Amino acid sequence: MLVGAIEAGGTKFVCAVGNEKNELLERVSFPTTTPEETMKQVFAFFDRFELAAIGIGSFGPIDVKPDSATYGYVLSTPKLAWKDYNFLGDMKERYDIPMGWTTDVNAAALGESAMGAAKGLRNTMYITIGTGVGAGAIVDGKILEGIGHPEMGHLLVRPHEHDHYKGFCPYHGNCLEGMAAGPSIDGRLGKAGKDIDPTDEVWDFVAYYIGQALEAYTVILRPERIVLGGGVMKVPGMLEKIKTQFTTLLADYVPVPAVDDYLVTPGFGDDAGITGAIILANQSVEK
Amino acid sequence: MLVGAIEAGGTKFVCAVGNEKNELLERVSFPTTTPEETMKQVFAFFDRFELAAIGIGSFGPIDVKPDSATYGYVLSTPKLAWKDYNFLGDMKERYDIPMGWTTDVNAAALGESAMGAAKGLRNTMYITIGTGVGAGAIVDGKILEGIGHPEMGHLLVRPHEHDHYKGFCPYHGNCLEGMAAGPSIDGRLGKAGKDIDPTDEVWDFVAYYIGQALEAYTVILRPERIVLGGGVMKVPGMLEKIKTQFTTLLADYVPVPAVDDYLVTPGFGDDAGITGAIILANQSVEK
Ligand SMILES: Nc1ncnc2c1ncn2[C@@H]1O[C@H](COP(=O)(O)OP(=O)(O)O)[C@@H](O)[C@H]1O
Ligand SMILES: Nc1ncnc2c1ncn2[C@@H]1O[C@H](COP(=O)(O)OP(=O)(O)O)[C@@H](O)[C@H]1O
Ligand SMILES: [Zn+2]
Ligand SMILES: [Zn+2]
Repeated sequence: MLVGAIEAGGTKFVCAVGNEKNELLERVSFPTTTPEETMKQVFAFFDRFELAAIGIGSFGPIDVKPDSATYGYVLSTPKLAWKDYNFLGDMKERYDIPMGWTTDVNAAALGESAMGAAKGLRNTMYITIGTGVGAGAIVDGKILEGIGHPEMGHLLVRPHEHDHYKGFCPYHGNCLEGMAAGPSIDGRLGKAGKDIDPTDEVWDFVAYYIGQALEAYTVILRPERIVLGGGVMKVPGMLEKIKTQFTTLLADYVPVPAVDDYLVTPGFGDDAGITGAIILANQSVEK
Repeated sequence: MLVGAIEAGGTKFVCAVGNEKNELLERVSFPTTTPEETMKQVFAFFDRFELAAIGIGSFGPIDVKPDSATYGYVLSTPKLAWKDYNFLGDMKERYDIPMGWTTDVNAAALGESAMGAAKGLRNTMYITIGTGVGAGAIVDGKILEGIGHPEMGHLLVRPHEHDHYKGFCPYHGNCLEGMAAGPSIDGRLGKAGKDIDPTDEVWDFVAYYIGQALEAYTVILRPERIVLGGGVMKVPGMLEKIKTQFTTLLADYVPVPAVDDYLVTPGFGDDAGITGAIILANQSVEK
């Protein structure tokens, strides 16, 4: 049995075909332009296969509420050509097969949970700190979604006492994303994160905010492991700084695994999302 | 078919018998003393019935991890007679039937979700702000638990700029519980909350902290509705203050239902917990 998978990112699309063991067999990748152009390439790829299901992890926000009138749509994205695009609807019109539909970060969370750094665990999380902050939770092997998909990057954090930056989030200013995502470094220091010395105190601020978020996710979700990825995690020593902040902030209130087992780097390079989309496709066959 | 239910609180136990429609048929209640004494009364009540299952919502912390060596135990509670007590084990020894085992607040969350103020919804939350702060989440009709049960009251919050109180949580000082639960009022003003004027600014502080927590739960869990109970919610005007804070803090970032439908008071008086335990019993039969 073959299944299809799409990782729809803001800059590129990855389409793949996998099997029921969640193995990736073949893939293509092309830039994200307009729905008309990009979907033509999506269809050209999948038309070649006999698929049992397709899993889609899309940039967002997207509508994941099955009883909503705009279920399957891309919502208010800054990529205007895609705003209000009925992504899932167009896929379903072309292929009348079961489809899984979630965000790109949720797909990556599922990939890391099932086959990556959190393999074998049922309750896990994945967070990426890059251009923005996104996170997904896997609860009992399934993606966590309520009335919509989580937006965990917009958790409100306590400002660090020595950090005078006000944050770049247009909604909240100093939420986690506003204070810890890549653009906050530029916002504070006028240069990109990769050009800032790893010993600069700004990384202590960033680690403090991420530590707070991990404390929140821990007391609310009680995951078995949290996988941390994204550009900001490339700063040398960042994971260690975060472990220290998290441990101090949690203050042993709830038991968690040893911090080196609890807070880990991704097991996949860039393949977490597309692998998660394959898993999602297989899960939607089973339903 | 009959099922049993226990709401084990720190000051009193409620035991009940219900049917497969989750209707409460008969109940007794007695003070929580020692496991020896109290469990004798529990057994005396349940021995009279032929039960298909029992659901237990217990004060905690408790061990809810099925593969743990101390699964079913009460853990490090300040009620010393109950510390390390094998509650579920003793129940199973007496009655060899399926049992559901969770915290008292999770049981209340399930009760409110299935039959109370969040009836008909699949993804809901219940939070109680009383002597402490506890909260439970229902995801797709089931209680959310990972490696342990949530401890959502220990979310870290931003101090209000005019609030100089340091918080009473022995672990975190100024976490949500430390800043917003009943004892924080005493800690600030030297008298109980019910003796403080409802227009005192302390209630604005409390509403600010609860509003932050609701923002966090919203972006992480995306519930359809949040039910708020506990002694502190009895302050006149408190729910309205919280709605205002929450709305300001969320800043329309994610869509939520109209705030009057989203943040609501409990549908049950004191029966949410015992009703939730009956539902849990019925869920454990189905498994
Ligand atoms: N080596 C690095 N050190 C610090 N910051 C980095 C580094 N590499 C990338 N970043 C930051 O990460 C962001 C890009 O994150 P990334 O996860 O690669 O992409 P995206 O979030 O767009 O998918 C940029 O804002 C950049 O500032
Ligand atoms: N009318 C009230 N106004 C303000 N605070 C109150 C009121 N009633 C109770 N409280 C506070 O609520 C706490 C008790 O909470 P409650 O939910 O009744 O019990 P518990 O949390 O112990 O189950 C006390 O700390 C008390 O200060
Ligand atoms: Zn924000
Ligand atoms: Zn605390």
